[in-house]
Amino acid sequence: MAVNLSAPDARSLLPVRGVMLGITEAGVRKAGRKDLLVIRLDDGARVAGVFTQNRLCAAPVIVTREHLAAAPNICALVVNTGNANAGTGAAGLAHARRTCADLAALLGCAPSQILPFSTGVIMEPLPAERISAGLPACLADLRADNWANAAQAIMTTDTIPKAASRQVTIGAARVTITGITKGAGMIHPNMATMLGYIATDARVAQPLLQKIVAQAAQKSFNAITVDGDTSTNDSFMLIASGAADMPEIKDETGSDYAELCAGVTEVAGELARAIVRDGEGATKFITLEIEGGRDEAECRKVGFAIGHSPLVKTAFFASDPNLGRILAAIGYAGIDDLDVSTLDLYLDDVLVARGGGRNPAYQEADGQRVMKQSEITVRVVLNRGKQAVTMWTCDLSHDYVSINADYRS
Amino acid sequence: MAVNLSAPDARSLLPVRGVMLGITEAGVRKAGRKDLLVIRLDDGARVAGVFTQNRLCAAPVIVTREHLAAAPNICALVVNTGNANAGTGAAGLAHARRTCADLAALLGCAPSQILPFSTGVIMEPLPAERISAGLPACLADLRADNWANAAQAIMTTDTIPKAASRQVTIGAARVTITGITKGAGMIHPNMATMLGYIATDARVAQPLLQKIVAQAAQKSFNAITVDGDTSTNDSFMLIASGAADMPEIKDETGSDYAELCAGVTEVAGELARAIVRDGEGATKFITLEIEGGRDEAECRKVGFAIGHSPLVKTAFFASDPNLGRILAAIGYAGIDDLDVSTLDLYLDDVLVARGGGRNPAYQEADGQRVMKQSEITVRVVLNRGKQAVTMWTCDLSHDYVSINADYRS
Repeated sequence: MAVNLSAPDARSLLPVRGVMLGITEAGVRKAGRKDLLVIRLDDGARVAGVFTQNRLCAAPVIVTREHLAAAPNICALVVNTGNANAGTGAAGLAHARRTCADLAALLGCAPSQILPFSTGVIMEPLPAERISAGLPACLADLRADNWANAAQAIMTTDTIPKAASRQVTIGAARVTITGITKGAGMIHPNMATMLGYIATDARVAQPLLQKIVAQAAQKSFNAITVDGDTSTNDSFMLIASGAADMPEIKDETGSDYAELCAGVTEVAGELARAIVRDGEGATKFITLEIEGGRDEAECRKVGFAIGHSPLVKTAFFASDPNLGRILAAIGYAGIDDLDVSTLDLYLDDVLVARGGGRNPAYQEADGQRVMKQSEITVRVVLNRGKQAVTMWTCDLSHDYVSINADYRS
Repeated sequence: MAVNLSAPDARSLLPVRGVMLGITEAGVRKAGRKDLLVIRLDDGARVAGVFTQNRLCAAPVIVTREHLAAAPNICALVVNTGNANAGTGAAGLAHARRTCADLAALLGCAPSQILPFSTGVIMEPLPAERISAGLPACLADLRADNWANAAQAIMTTDTIPKAASRQVTIGAARVTITGITKGAGMIHPNMATMLGYIATDARVAQPLLQKIVAQAAQKSFNAITVDGDTSTNDSFMLIASGAADMPEIKDETGSDYAELCAGVTEVAGELARAIVRDGEGATKFITLEIEGGRDEAECRKVGFAIGHSPLVKTAFFASDPNLGRILAAIGYAGIDDLDVSTLDLYLDDVLVARGGGRNPAYQEADGQRVMKQSEITVRVVLNRGKQAVTMWTCDLSHDYVSINADYRS
């Protein structure tokens, strides 16, 4: 069902020096599926992340933030699918800590050097003993070329595993950036997506790593929406092993920082778009280009209003150029002083509305032609400033309802 | 498909002295259906209204606001369905003005004494000539006991006409309040609903009438959501003919004002709930009681987050007590300092979550029992203040997608 998305070729996913991955079938929720991942980091790796802004953030998010703040030297990340360990109160926190303690004992490090992550059903007790029982198998499976299996092990309602890989040249060094992500529903990331992990062997100072992850998130995971629901478990982690033979990037003024930031943003963007392409029930992939805003924030408001509107999304599903629904969504996006009489609306190259009303030259047949495509660009020109953003969303189909009506059964 | 809603018995809709209604089949969009309504007011009637906050407000909304501001003595309201006359630019404004001019000529009043309203497809040219051609038939049909037909003439995707009637005693006078409304999709009113008209024969000063309509909207049309889309045409009008034998209500401190306000709010509430019961594809009617907030605004944020969440709505459709989705929606409702560890969540009388986590005594079977009902109350206790609001929404079903994928065809 995913829109122009296929599983990544395992050979295209470049190993990142200093990072190994191991997976197993721990039986967290269902038997016979990969559902537990350990990402093992060599000494000297640095980790930064951005997390859900949901006030009901999950227990593992609380523990990961705590550990990141306490320990600069993270040894491993551990991720389970099948259970989000969210809305689980004090017991949930204890479960997340137990996973850290058990993995730390196996690795000979402190529990605070472990970062835990969970995804799946909310408000069910985490079967922590099954997770702990699965950890030795994950460690036995640790390999540098295990990214494709790792992408599979973190899936929930995803139909296709999601991974991407790039190399960039920084100074004289060839640096690798490889990442995986998961997510298909409850996708309206607020500072991060459901789960995303990108590793690079670049050497980069910790404060800059945090800047890169935040900048990359803004143009990738924070620029997509499937259904407008912000998950309790959103986490996007950037790992820099420092294994590349290069001087450490220490400031953000040079081209080294820019190169690395661009590479990470590119990988993050590919992963984020993969989430939309695999959005629950998606049949169309929609790119939203919002231009001519006074600032990026108002462009994002317009993009999310369009991307969240069930009426716009069902019109895309129906290939129906009922484009007044897009104008209506722009109107309620929350720009209080928006003058709609300066608005232009394009569907791909077709000028649909001009000056806030229907373009007299617009022919329904032209709109119909574009709406039938599986990939469509909606371009809104606000004509009130010079800022622009690009965002991505999908349509709302019968299958979205089916998938979410059946998710737990 | 509507949830426990049936068409009003025409005899239960009490005529309002000083107000007559006439309808016809003008063929605005489709032949053979009632689609044009004129509400004729006797001299001395007062009208107040609240309107959509959508920046792309429709041409008739612009003209109605202009006329209400200019003329205290409104002669008639004219409502067409089948075409929203929104996103239609200058031509749309001209069409709305032409309708007013033509009706004014027939009635012998000024065009500014006419208030125009439209509902239907956005961004299609209004067939103003067909509307004008239908006006004489509406006038020939004018009757005081025509409320049931009027309710039918303003429907779009509504499956059932919506009307309500009450009498209240004010001083020694028996005062009638009768109203109609329409709306099933694009329902997330922001100051008003799609279209709602309530008339009373009470005598009330104009500034108080405006207060009453705003207060009633807040507890009725502004407390419902079907799909989170705010219409371009939302208008809720309150007409006071002044025909009742009573002294004019001139201040809001006395019991007369309170009686009238309560009566109007009651009728508005019944109409607003009828919209939710007839929400596109609705199979469940959900009451949201949000308690213990610091102010009403934060309670409303929580209610709308739950009411808008596609994940919550599909779980209701599936009768699946996947109630962690409700907790997640509360978490992202936008209360920045929300402490989730004080949250309680009830489904009808079942305590599902306590202190932000699953209630240890909660049994899935109890949640399942409530979820299978067609009417469900979700009660959220924030435990951070003394304010509360009640709101209403419906589930998200396959039929919502079907209806909106097919709406124009």
